[in-house]
Amino acid sequence: MKNIIVLGSTGSIGRQTLDIVRQFPNKLNVVGLSAGHNVDLLKEQINEFCASYYCSIEPNNCQGHAAQYCTLEQMSSIESVDLVMVATTGSVGLQPTLTALKSKKQVALSNKEPIVMAGNIIKEYEAMYGGVILPVDSEPSAIWQCIRGEIGQVKKLIITASGGPFRNTPTNLLSSVTPEEALKHPTWNMGKKITIDSSTMMNKAFEVIESKWLFDMDWDNIEVMIHPQSTVHSMVEFIDGSVKAQLGPPNMRLPIQYALFYPDRIANVNIPRLPTDTSYSLEFQPLDVDRYPCYKIALQWARLGGTYPTVISAADEVAVEAFLNKQIKYTRIPEIINTVISRHSNIDNPGLDDILDSEIWATTTARTLVGN
Amino acid sequence: MKNIIVLGSTGSIGRQTLDIVRQFPNKLNVVGLSAGHNVDLLKEQINEFCASYYCSIEPNNCQGHAAQYCTLEQMSSIESVDLVMVATTGSVGLQPTLTALKSKKQVALSNKEPIVMAGNIIKEYEAMYGGVILPVDSEPSAIWQCIRGEIGQVKKLIITASGGPFRNTPTNLLSSVTPEEALKHPTWNMGKKITIDSSTMMNKAFEVIESKWLFDMDWDNIEVMIHPQSTVHSMVEFIDGSVKAQLGPPNMRLPIQYALFYPDRIANVNIPRLPTDTSYSLEFQPLDVDRYPCYKIALQWARLGGTYPTVISAADEVAVEAFLNKQIKYTRIPEIINTVISRHSNIDNPGLDDILDSEIWATTTARTLVGN
Repeated sequence: MKNIIVLGSTGSIGRQTLDIVRQFPNKLNVVGLSAGHNVDLLKEQINEFCASYYCSIEPNNCQGHAAQYCTLEQMSSIESVDLVMVATTGSVGLQPTLTALKSKKQVALSNKEPIVMAGNIIKEYEAMYGGVILPVDSEPSAIWQCIRGEIGQVKKLIITASGGPFRNTPTNLLSSVTPEEALKHPTWNMGKKITIDSSTMMNKAFEVIESKWLFDMDWDNIEVMIHPQSTVHSMVEFIDGSVKAQLGPPNMRLPIQYALFYPDRIANVNIPRLPTDTSYSLEFQPLDVDRYPCYKIALQWARLGGTYPTVISAADEVAVEAFLNKQIKYTRIPEIINTVISRHSNIDNPGLDDILDSEIWATTTARTLVGN
Repeated sequence: MKNIIVLGSTGSIGRQTLDIVRQFPNKLNVVGLSAGHNVDLLKEQINEFCASYYCSIEPNNCQGHAAQYCTLEQMSSIESVDLVMVATTGSVGLQPTLTALKSKKQVALSNKEPIVMAGNIIKEYEAMYGGVILPVDSEPSAIWQCIRGEIGQVKKLIITASGGPFRNTPTNLLSSVTPEEALKHPTWNMGKKITIDSSTMMNKAFEVIESKWLFDMDWDNIEVMIHPQSTVHSMVEFIDGSVKAQLGPPNMRLPIQYALFYPDRIANVNIPRLPTDTSYSLEFQPLDVDRYPCYKIALQWARLGGTYPTVISAADEVAVEAFLNKQIKYTRIPEIINTVISRHSNIDNPGLDDILDSEIWATTTARTLVGN
């Protein structure tokens, strides 16, 4: 029996994580749950899973059950907890991730912004305290699965990208794209922030940064290919030229479950299978970076290290929110990020305080630019 | 330094194996070489690699060097030898494979007929004497690479097949197919016997049988899909539904090298890489078994076990040779195999003698049918 807490339990990954707990009640026990404003669902979940602890932005609305309120950091360090599922959105996952690592937990990381913002600190904490990051995102999970049993023999990562809903949209039409259009992802059904990030390919830039840290790779050995079917979730080229790919219908249950039960694989009828009785075709195309200014800007600056990745992540979070609130046009997203970065005084080898300060600075600067 | 012998050194796999020895002279040392009638090349190889032992069908024509003649069995049990590359064709590889296993060698098995004919005996020898089979064939090698670090978690194997040169040929035209046409494989450049077996899909049936033994799989958990590009060499589905595939341009150097150096992967500029700078498409189609009578007949009978697989392999060897010699039409290949099997009195749980007797019986019966 593994004791887990789920941060972001009312979001897409959080709900799917709890679905897996429902399927395997003898293997997983929910100790704590946290959510933002979706208090009604959080209360239901607390009752259903008999959670002992909860956290919410609206704790006063969470009465009527026996669970005890605590902060995200308190929850991430509860002694009986084995694994913390960080399924929050944006920068909010950073502090609990660090606390969980410090408390020697397994950290199933679905929320990629923490590692984008503070990859160096996270790796430092892993090495120093003995906690461990388990990727939940489908692409890093694919890479993690492919390198299993082959540590030290990897040459290159090939991260796949669906290309998003605007893969074939003429770029001059992008300025009039609406949030509703951008939220229609061709293959994946996900939360709002990550769906917009997928459409701009910022999400893919984040995965490159994430993979650099998770798998200790050089920037030049991480490539991205457009793969519209989202069936191959990523590939790994080994030093002898052999390539392994991980495949499956686009569905987050597999990477979630893989992280929850690692190193064991467990049969689950709710995970769809790759067909062998129908024909299919898998296409791969080189990435045209000029089509995706967010991707281009992000990696151009992230390669320089320091606090740039933090600033990119924070500025993107503000810009995407502003686009979803119809405060800015779609094409303003990369412009805002670019402006914020170009005004930033980078800090080399940043400590956690530098990262948190840069985040606040970038958030404030971006908010000014969107007019908040 | 690994001491190796190469059986079938003048054939396609043998020559590519020696190319790898040329590239890594500090890692591989050739102790012995064997070939059939290509004595001139064999002599060159003996001199170049300073082989101590050789075997040939024409030993009298192999004078002029310091190497000592010995039989295939003697060569497979030389004490200083670590690995025996069995790159022979047809049934000739069986006895040396067994001898090498008995002598606790690693056996890099490119020649699939031995394991098709005598899979139960080979597995018995592995368990009894401690020798080990390392697959060299690209599909079993792909499976072997995919299950690395995941033993015990496999649900299903998906073996890919190019479909051969007649994948789209109307079946009523197959009776007039010439050996020259059948030898034009669309993606792989291989020896004659295996190229004809690929065109009839008998080769794929052999790979199913081979994989059943190598990976201890049930018949029902081995599927075949047509994949015309021969880029995905095979796939493995795990119990949780995740699929791993091994990919690369069709080239035997990779699986040969993987077996020679396992568990290490070694960089080799002569192994072509999967591109990331050009677009490509990978197609997969269910196998229409009615298009490939050799495949259908072979697996229908092989599932019954006993000496049937031996008989299939032996009858196929005779029929393919007769087709290459223009003694029979292409469409007679499955007819002859079917006739031979239907006349066979199967022996359950056969010993080695039963297998060898059945092979002789099937060869004789098939020869009578082709008119030899």
